[in-house]
Parts: sequence; structure tokens; C-alpha cells
Amino acid sequence: MPTFASKSNCMTMRIDILTVLPEMLEGTINCSILKRAQDKGLAEIHLHNLRDYTTNKWRRVDDYPFGGEAGMVMQIEPIDRAISALKGERDYDEVIYTSPDGETFNQPMANKMSMLNNLIILCGHYKGIDYRIREHLITKEISVGDYVLTGGELAAAIMADAVIRLLPGAIGDEQSALSDSFQDNLLAPPVYTRPADYNGWKVPEVLLSGHERKIAEWRLQQAHERTLRLRPDLLK
Amino acid sequence: MPTFASKSNCMTMRIDILTVLPEMLEGTINCSILKRAQDKGLAEIHLHNLRDYTTNKWRRVDDYPFGGEAGMVMQIEPIDRAISALKGERDYDEVIYTSPDGETFNQPMANKMSMLNNLIILCGHYKGIDYRIREHLITKEISVGDYVLTGGELAAAIMADAVIRLLPGAIGDEQSALSDSFQDNLLAPPVYTRPADYNGWKVPEVLLSGHERKIAEWRLQQAHERTLRLRPDLLK
Repeated sequence: MPTFASKSNCMTMRIDILTVLPEMLEGTINCSILKRAQDKGLAEIHLHNLRDYTTNKWRRVDDYPFGGEAGMVMQIEPIDRAISALKGERDYDEVIYTSPDGETFNQPMANKMSMLNNLIILCGHYKGIDYRIREHLITKEISVGDYVLTGGELAAAIMADAVIRLLPGAIGDEQSALSDSFQDNLLAPPVYTRPADYNGWKVPEVLLSGHERKIAEWRLQQAHERTLRLRPDLLK
Repeated sequence: MPTFASKSNCMTMRIDILTVLPEMLEGTINCSILKRAQDKGLAEIHLHNLRDYTTNKWRRVDDYPFGGEAGMVMQIEPIDRAISALKGERDYDEVIYTSPDGETFNQPMANKMSMLNNLIILCGHYKGIDYRIREHLITKEISVGDYVLTGGELAAAIMADAVIRLLPGAIGDEQSALSDSFQDNLLAPPVYTRPADYNGWKVPEVLLSGHERKIAEWRLQQAHERTLRLRPDLLK
């Protein structure tokens, strides 16, 4: 059975995202379930522009790498200042860095994270961040998948979305989250809606039968068959 | 060696994203590298609101599932109409559905996709889409990771970002993409920038030595060591 968030209702999950591109995420985090969860007081997402923590007049956050490699590297100071400022205001459960070499994000991690209170997510950019930040300031490195993105912003959005939708009350129908793919290590069975016949494409008879037990059996069999065929690794 | 996009310069990659939440992606796709690639004429990203393809006055795109499950299911008709309209205008290489049971997106897939011309990405929402769409209209199902999101929008953004940044000219310094994590099945080595000493946190001596061969050796050794420790599966 899935582990779900069981925080007391008085706590609001808070996610602080440190980025050089807040405009990349503004629309995303104020939309759909993330908006609803914030409107209901279940979660707060705060975007912080790392340039606001620079001390140089150009608001530069990056510099050339030592050793002459291509690309630019994000500097320690603005990141250290931003994290210190936030930690001065409250305790954080984790300071996460979105990185392709981090632990691969998955549903059990999302379930676990949904029980935390305060998270910082640092979005890397350019060639990456000065490695000393990772050694001294980051508590957890997470990758959302084996691909390279322009920056960590979309990875941060993915984590926020996957975690916040699990907070009790965030999605309208909690049963719906329970039957999502991955929550029982099975892919979800096929779903169908009206019309029952669309230009000759038909819904399986059993779903129209009204026979609850047969429908439940069919769904389980489909979930198993699909998992075995498409993602046998999940059944291990 | 990585495979890179080698399309002739006269072609612009076009990605059409079908969604019920275009506002979730508007900021994202008009920002950073995605904006630059579009400004340079390397790529076009078009967002299409599926509600514009409905025929009912409430612009509804979903309905209850057959068989009585929780959650709502996206209907065939608006999706069929949107895809047909686009296919009437040009040929598409793939009609992609973002789904947790799809093939897992990774860097080799991104490299391959960067050589295509026209892509449709359909973002699922609610409990999913009517399965007949997947059987008849979708040519490829892709998952960005083993976690459940509110919708396919962030997955579509991830694919667009990972693919478009590979187009020649999209990122400033192409050497930088070549040395990204995953491009040679190794995690990237640590990077450092100024200052060389930050409150006692020091840059490895070798990177300050100016000795090119030693620096290259150190980087390769670090990349191997990090991959072996953090992602031994990549070395298989």
C-alpha cells in the first residue's frame, strides 16, 4: 500500500526555489493543482532570484571554471547568501540540488517528501554549480531523469508538482491518486469515456457490463499485463 | 561519441503541444534557451488549447470513465480534431503522448529526437486519456520518469528543453553540451569557479596548476569515480 502524507493539518508545506530564471516557473507554479494547493493553504512555493543575492553591480552569478573547461559555473557566494537568509528564518528538512548525478526521483521519494515541511530546491544552470556548494550546503541531490536540461527549473517544478499533489486535499478526488500508476508498482489499466463507439473504435464490453467484480478483475489483469509487457522491472 | 543533430540549416524544428493548460507552459517555453532557439529560427513551439477543439458550449474535454472508476478521462473528440487539424497542415514525425507507462526518456532519445522536424506532444491530464486515442492516434508514448504528475505539461516542457538545446546554435558554447553528463555515459566531473578559497573551502590544487594534461586526467578520473560510486549502471 502507498504511504501517504499524514502531516497534521496545521502545517503548510513550504518549498523555496532558488533560481536565476524565476520567470520560467512563475506561470507553472501558479496554475492547476499547485495553485489550488496554495489557495487552500496546503503549500507555499516561493521563487527567489539568485541575482538578488549578488554583491556585484552586474548581478552576475557565474564565472569561468578553473582549469579552462567550456561553459560557465555558478558561484558560491550568492547561493550561500540565499540559503543562509532562508535558514535564518526557519529550519529546513532538506536543501536539494537538482542534478543529473543525484538520486533518481521516483514515486516513493515523492511520497516521503510529501511528509516534510520545509524544502529548499536549488536550480543549477550553465555548466553547473561550484562543487563546494554541493559538498557543504546541499543535503540531497536529486535527478528527475537521465537527460540534460537547460537548468534545474523544470526538475524543481516536477518535484513540487509530484509532491504537492499528494498533500491531503490537494487533488479533488483522493481515490484518483491512489489508483495512479506506480502507487502499487503497477501501471494503471486503460481508461475509457464516452462515446462507447467513436467511428468504430469501441470500448471493451466488460466496462459497459455494470458487473463490478468482473470490471475489477479486468482492470487488475490489464494492469498486470501492461506492466509485464512495458515495465517488467516494476514487478521485481 | 554522442550523436548530434545534423539537420540542414533550412529546417526549423516544430513542436506542437496539445494541452488543457497552455498557461502552465507559456512562461517556460518563452524563456532562456527555448526563447533563444525560437528567436534564432531554430525551433518553433506552439501551444494549442484542447478546449478550442471542443464542440460543446461548455468547452468540456473530459467525462466520467466507463466502469465507474474515480477521476475524469479526456475524451477522444477534441484530441482527434486537434491532431487532424495539425496533420492537415504538415507531416509529423511522431505524435507523442506523455505517459508514465511510456518508454523512459533519456539522453540518447533526446539526441535522436533532435534530428526530427515536426512533433506533436499530447499532454494527458486528470485520470488519463481515452485509451482508444493511444491505440489509434499516438505513435510514441514517453515517460520522463517513474512519478505521477498533475499532467503531461511538465513532461512536454522537459522533452522540448532537452531536445531543442541540442540543435546546432541553440546553446552558446557547443563544447559545453558535449561535456554534459550522459553524453559519454559518464557523469560530469566537479566544476569550480572563483574564489579559489571561500571561507576555507578550497578548489583542488590540480585545477590551479595550469597543467593541461594533468587537468584532463583528473577530470576523467573524477568522472569515472563519480559514475562508479553514484551511477554504476551507466558503465554497463
